[in-house]
Amino acid sequence: MSVVALSGGVGGAKLSLGLYRTLPPGTLTVVVNTGDDFDHLGLHICPDLDTMLYTLAGLANPAQGWGRRNETWSLMHVLEALGEETWFQLGDADTALHIVRTWRLQQGVRLSEVMSEFRRRLDIEAEILPMSDSSVATWIDTDAGELAFQDYFVRCQCQPSVRGIRFGGAENARVVPAARDALTAATLEAIVICPSNPYLSIDPLLAIPELRTLLLERHIPCIAVSPLIGSAAIKGPTAKIMKELGLEISNAAIARHYDGLIDALVIDPVDAGDAVSLPVPVFQHPTLMSTLDDRTSLARFVMDCAQNLWTTC
Amino acid sequence: MSVVALSGGVGGAKLSLGLYRTLPPGTLTVVVNTGDDFDHLGLHICPDLDTMLYTLAGLANPAQGWGRRNETWSLMHVLEALGEETWFQLGDADTALHIVRTWRLQQGVRLSEVMSEFRRRLDIEAEILPMSDSSVATWIDTDAGELAFQDYFVRCQCQPSVRGIRFGGAENARVVPAARDALTAATLEAIVICPSNPYLSIDPLLAIPELRTLLLERHIPCIAVSPLIGSAAIKGPTAKIMKELGLEISNAAIARHYDGLIDALVIDPVDAGDAVSLPVPVFQHPTLMSTLDDRTSLARFVMDCAQNLWTTC
Repeated sequence: MSVVALSGGVGGAKLSLGLYRTLPPGTLTVVVNTGDDFDHLGLHICPDLDTMLYTLAGLANPAQGWGRRNETWSLMHVLEALGEETWFQLGDADTALHIVRTWRLQQGVRLSEVMSEFRRRLDIEAEILPMSDSSVATWIDTDAGELAFQDYFVRCQCQPSVRGIRFGGAENARVVPAARDALTAATLEAIVICPSNPYLSIDPLLAIPELRTLLLERHIPCIAVSPLIGSAAIKGPTAKIMKELGLEISNAAIARHYDGLIDALVIDPVDAGDAVSLPVPVFQHPTLMSTLDDRTSLARFVMDCAQNLWTTC
Repeated sequence: MSVVALSGGVGGAKLSLGLYRTLPPGTLTVVVNTGDDFDHLGLHICPDLDTMLYTLAGLANPAQGWGRRNETWSLMHVLEALGEETWFQLGDADTALHIVRTWRLQQGVRLSEVMSEFRRRLDIEAEILPMSDSSVATWIDTDAGELAFQDYFVRCQCQPSVRGIRFGGAENARVVPAARDALTAATLEAIVICPSNPYLSIDPLLAIPELRTLLLERHIPCIAVSPLIGSAAIKGPTAKIMKELGLEISNAAIARHYDGLIDALVIDPVDAGDAVSLPVPVFQHPTLMSTLDDRTSLARFVMDCAQNLWTTC
């Protein structure tokens, strides 16, 4: 058997870790958002891919949700002394990945190959893949003008009000071959859409026509885990963005957003009242993932749901 | 008044620091060897320029002679974990300079402008300039084949026997404009050739026809400080290379090497016996520079010599 997870950064990485610890080694493929990727001081930075890498390797910083544990900041202090922009944090250990990745890309190696090499070097027995080897850039149209994703998310700390989101390059992007293979494998038992921000972190994947088609043509259950708990997002601007886009902040809106792409939505029991109004089957399980046990418990529950959906297919 | 120093890395930086602390602020220009520069993991690294920068900024590591004091090594540990080459040490703080420099060069900024910006940011009131803005690469012909400089110097730790040295690109390289201006300034009182390795660290400068011509056509004294003390080099492979190239390991050989380019050689009193055989005036002063006092004392002595030579001109 095998499983594919579609994910953004922090929240998605938590459930991916749960899946990784629950499933047999070598059976999980995580396809990760690269709409947040950007070039900074000449370095190619892939925030969601690296968060996934560090999380599955057990190297993630548990407090801040991004970056590495036991990080040092010597490089950043020098950038500051040199008068460089410091709004984007570059940890010393973290920067090693940016340097090697940038160098490999300059040599013509594909991003998917680079990430596959990294995860093997870090002894991760799951495949971590970018959604595409070509550039897909998330742009946020706001009341402060259109902003590149990191400008909006990090520099402006999601303060501007969002009017729209587009994914530059998505129309012509191809899914990386290994992700396509994973999504069409005869062994595939389930596709999991992680509780990442649907608009910022999952939509970039769905904006790639080939990936959307692969999901629409699936022969196995696709289950999304809602990022909302009690009409709020645990972390990040999901609820704020839904409001700004004129959407109802509810699991019904999430389910409608994934219409045709999912066979079930997992919601938190505090939102049990939402279940009646949803267009897809609903399963309830705590979705707050504070501990590793929370993550593996939710992952096991999601896999059980997939099993149930198989049985009823 | 103003002074120009020609220098390589560690030894040259020590005397340059002495000159910097001795001369009025803003009067010293150090023109530095870039034959050792190389690209590593996509970063453009200038070992001698950075050693000079750190030394004049008071940031140099006093024990190892290269790199920064209080350096951290998180980045290096990750490079090792990723299976990258680790023969060249990349300190965390040090790497910030490599990143910014590489980025600036990619944007079309000249190396001399980058270094000038760096030294201003680090509050250094002396100009630190590369000898050229175009690439001049030192290649070492050895019994193990021809090696790029860092391969010879760092990776092979100067073990192979040297048969010859060439400076790729020197013939067509131009001196950076600010260095040319400094060498032709009406205020110029002296040119100092620092006690760097003449064959590895000073010859790359002299291999640039324009720079050699500027030295030959000088109207002010040029004084070299010998890198030898008692027929040995304090640090680095000077004596070993002289032997391998079939040269006598002596101040006479050093003076002949700089024939026509210098008006005097400063040697250590332990080599007083060499004085009689030298083709240029000789001044004696301790050249071992363990302390800052040693450095400023030697620098003051060199400036006094220049003054004496002026008087006798």
